[in-house]
Amino acid sequence: MSAVVGVDLGGSKIALGLVNAENAILSRRRIDTEAAAGLDSVITRISAQVASLRRELPKGQDIAAVGVGAPGPVDPIHGDLLTLVNLPGISNTPFRRALSQRLGVPVALDHDAKVAALGEFHFGAGKKRDSMIYIVIGTGVGAAIIYQGRLLYGESNTAGESGHMTVDPNGHLCHCGSRGCLEAYASGPALSRHYATATGETIDGAQVAERARAGDVTALQTLAEAGRALGIAVASLAMTLNIELFVIGGSVAQADALLLNPARATLPGYAFKTVAERVQVRASQLGEDGAILGAAWLARARGKLS
Amino acid sequence: MSAVVGVDLGGSKIALGLVNAENAILSRRRIDTEAAAGLDSVITRISAQVASLRRELPKGQDIAAVGVGAPGPVDPIHGDLLTLVNLPGISNTPFRRALSQRLGVPVALDHDAKVAALGEFHFGAGKKRDSMIYIVIGTGVGAAIIYQGRLLYGESNTAGESGHMTVDPNGHLCHCGSRGCLEAYASGPALSRHYATATGETIDGAQVAERARAGDVTALQTLAEAGRALGIAVASLAMTLNIELFVIGGSVAQADALLLNPARATLPGYAFKTVAERVQVRASQLGEDGAILGAAWLARARGKLS
Repeated sequence: MSAVVGVDLGGSKIALGLVNAENAILSRRRIDTEAAAGLDSVITRISAQVASLRRELPKGQDIAAVGVGAPGPVDPIHGDLLTLVNLPGISNTPFRRALSQRLGVPVALDHDAKVAALGEFHFGAGKKRDSMIYIVIGTGVGAAIIYQGRLLYGESNTAGESGHMTVDPNGHLCHCGSRGCLEAYASGPALSRHYATATGETIDGAQVAERARAGDVTALQTLAEAGRALGIAVASLAMTLNIELFVIGGSVAQADALLLNPARATLPGYAFKTVAERVQVRASQLGEDGAILGAAWLARARGKLS
Repeated sequence: MSAVVGVDLGGSKIALGLVNAENAILSRRRIDTEAAAGLDSVITRISAQVASLRRELPKGQDIAAVGVGAPGPVDPIHGDLLTLVNLPGISNTPFRRALSQRLGVPVALDHDAKVAALGEFHFGAGKKRDSMIYIVIGTGVGAAIIYQGRLLYGESNTAGESGHMTVDPNGHLCHCGSRGCLEAYASGPALSRHYATATGETIDGAQVAERARAGDVTALQTLAEAGRALGIAVASLAMTLNIELFVIGGSVAQADALLLNPARATLPGYAFKTVAERVQVRASQLGEDGAILGAAWLARARGKLS
């Protein structure tokens, strides 16, 4: 098996990794997305980084394919971008085909949460498991459901919007317009907002996690409320889907036990005892590498030429 | 294709139907379950009814298989009963094999909500659809998820316990011990309890529906509260699974628009606009025949000899 390149295309940053046949990341790159510059510019800059990674391979070796995880719904059949909510400059464009044509290698594309889930499922916290729900908590909250080894997409490719499950119908208003979504409790901006409401001080979600680790009681309470919301959502998902492994990733998940322990403690109050006992809520093992390794897995499994 | 027999094995009644190759029910039987009499007795009485249905076929024709829907989790691989919560006399017994040996024809067995869902999916409200969530509302609330034509079972065969999704974490206590389960709002006993709390008068769920149809304001409010809980659960399921057809069956579902309209009205407040617009919440088309036709479908698809 040849090497492949995994690309994590984010709203502000693009991370790339050269991945060998043993699924080790040999080399990395990180550049700004600059989505406002438009599709051609993003493709040109990704291509330059892929070319640079290619040159690191021993003479005679080449990459077999490129995989990309991107924000927003992606059509898994055609693998073209449908809507990139956070990348207005390159929305609704045949991104995968354009990149494949530029590079002359097969390219596979999928939604970023699904790609990170594939990484954790094949190489991280979900290794050797049959099914897994990956919940990514950052600026937003998204999920990817792997059932018997296969990602679920749903009828219009929007499966996994579990950040907008209702955890309290009378709870906080979510920016999506609904009330009491998981995202209105557990996302970075939600942590920031709730901390500011309690203290008058505005810091971001990562800083709330940092202060909680340092013993700040309000920060701990903010994370505990987020964890409780996460636990309620996990309980409802476990009751409905009977999937037993939940892997929590994303920047807020770095709060780790301060977020996950309240979630674990909430679970038995909202699920059958027999279900709650089997459910494991784990932090992602691969962190940001999950997206690169998942994209690399996707490249091998689904990479298509132009 | 030969005829088959579909069996709806309930906690108090057993309904059987002789189903021809065109999936029409030619003849029906209905007997008491008398689960307390034990497995042998139940099998003997089912066998007598199957024999009686067989005799109705023209000379030279016979049934090809028998399908059974039963309460409680069923192992879909072996098709034997795991736990029949409401049938203590015949719990944890190799029911399918015993019945197949007695009848000398292949028998297939699955969970009652799943079997009724198969009926609606193949012959009723879900005909020609790709995916469907069936929610049965009666003494309890259960669900069956059909994704791309296949039932989801989960890792321990308990998928579909969506009656115990949390619709309000501070809401009514459910008999399962959790708080705010859908079942604590929408089941027959929940309707009865909430009506009694408001009026001091104890009537069952079907009677609440009847009074609502006659214009009783408290009964209407009780159903509206149940419908709102249903709408919240449907919204969360639709966001997570992106399945767009919800079929509501079971005795309480006979309240129809008085239950389903409040659910439909609640949906947009708890799901993305784009998702809510695509979701259809429909009453089951087949009523009690759904279980018989689903069991007949199961018999053809999965019937196994002893």
